[in-house]
Amino acid sequence: MKIAVIGLGLIGASLAKSLAGRAEITGIDRNPDIVDKAVRDGVISQGGDDPSLARGCDMTVISLPVGSIVDAARELRLHLGPDAPVTDTGSTKARISREIESFWPCFVGSHPIAGKENPGYSASQPDLFAGRPCIITPGTHAPQECVQQVRQLWETCGSRVTIMDPIQHDELMAVISHMPHLLSFASMGLAGDLHIHRGLLGAGFRDFTRIAASDPVMWRDILLDNSKHILKLLDDYVLELGLMRDLIGGRDAAGLEERLRTYSNIRRNLYEDNR
Amino acid sequence: MKIAVIGLGLIGASLAKSLAGRAEITGIDRNPDIVDKAVRDGVISQGGDDPSLARGCDMTVISLPVGSIVDAARELRLHLGPDAPVTDTGSTKARISREIESFWPCFVGSHPIAGKENPGYSASQPDLFAGRPCIITPGTHAPQECVQQVRQLWETCGSRVTIMDPIQHDELMAVISHMPHLLSFASMGLAGDLHIHRGLLGAGFRDFTRIAASDPVMWRDILLDNSKHILKLLDDYVLELGLMRDLIGGRDAAGLEERLRTYSNIRRNLYEDNR
Repeated sequence: MKIAVIGLGLIGASLAKSLAGRAEITGIDRNPDIVDKAVRDGVISQGGDDPSLARGCDMTVISLPVGSIVDAARELRLHLGPDAPVTDTGSTKARISREIESFWPCFVGSHPIAGKENPGYSASQPDLFAGRPCIITPGTHAPQECVQQVRQLWETCGSRVTIMDPIQHDELMAVISHMPHLLSFASMGLAGDLHIHRGLLGAGFRDFTRIAASDPVMWRDILLDNSKHILKLLDDYVLELGLMRDLIGGRDAAGLEERLRTYSNIRRNLYEDNR
Repeated sequence: MKIAVIGLGLIGASLAKSLAGRAEITGIDRNPDIVDKAVRDGVISQGGDDPSLARGCDMTVISLPVGSIVDAARELRLHLGPDAPVTDTGSTKARISREIESFWPCFVGSHPIAGKENPGYSASQPDLFAGRPCIITPGTHAPQECVQQVRQLWETCGSRVTIMDPIQHDELMAVISHMPHLLSFASMGLAGDLHIHRGLLGAGFRDFTRIAASDPVMWRDILLDNSKHILKLLDDYVLELGLMRDLIGGRDAAGLEERLRTYSNIRRNLYEDNR
């Protein structure tokens, strides 16, 4: 099987690595140093910066920041027929699916839930998707064959595949990924001269702020692309903080304990025996 | 050496376990089942619910929720002389130190930065403090001998001890511990019917929300006790979210990227090669 991967960053290169021995990978990246390195490492068979290199591949995966995916698909469409299977790996799906489907009916969006805060080729790893969820979001007119091919791609990488409507995907991701990132990012605005106390940072701070180290360009695109859901949740969250403020400022110990217990139970129930 | 530990929860019982073989531990807890279990487990030599059991010990450690420490010290003072070394393990220090020092000059507060979200005796472990920071906050009149004894206690458990002013401690902890907990707790208010999508939760969500599973009583006390610093930071944080809201709502891609880059750099610099 021949697979073309556009963008050899964390996700694209991890995909190439996890398909090693099971597919021949063509890597397309605007950075020639990364392409050379990926060839030398044996991660891709050949590569370059020209999207026409995807010709003849059984599947093309666009693994670029959310804001660059539709343009890349448009350019790719000049070189591939409308029935060529193509997917992406973006963290938002509604706009991307809607726009690409309008000129490429067999597009089936993907979102492997398997990132980490260190971006780039150098952070890629062959087991990034193993056992991790991957949501695929076929449009209403996507041929069943294309859906199956995209599903198989991720299952080959060890992902657990879930099919979801693109709009429902974005609504869910706003809660479980985009808001946590935004809130963790913004907490760095409180850091001040914290670096002088680096030795005193505990596990709570480390874990809460880990995703604040994420890639700014990737997250700029995600926050703008899913702004409708995010802005709504941001308003809800500020209301939630206002309630906490009232309970703390009003020294309402019973009310505060009750609210904290509710939060704690929600978290515990989400993970149950698997905290 | 004989040590009395009041409160056999996560911290108190972990302390007893980490001193195994190096001290004889008397455990004082209002729950007789926990005392019995700790004796059977060999974690303490003897115990009960009566603070007078601390008589004759070389050091007493009050390991209770922040809101119960001063009362426990008052009761303990009926049984121990004013020169008996005593410390606590609370996550706030200014009020506790001020109040206890007023009737017990050799009190030296401690804060081992080594919690986890699972509370209670059953979560305790002998290596909880190994390599972890512990801040001790001696009052201005604390005898040097008492300070040394408290320092040695924690160093025996493997902690890295830092001495700090109690007020500075609370100001710092508001940033690196109390606010992350509050913000993570409050994010559970957005969860809605998230449990139906449990299988799709990623590492970012897991880590960001881990501390939202923390103990409600412990955190009720901490948030109320350090409310001055926390309310100020809460207001700062809401302003920070307002800036993010404006950048996202105004679709200011360049401004948003710049701000995310600033946050990301702050986090990366805090941990440098140790993310």
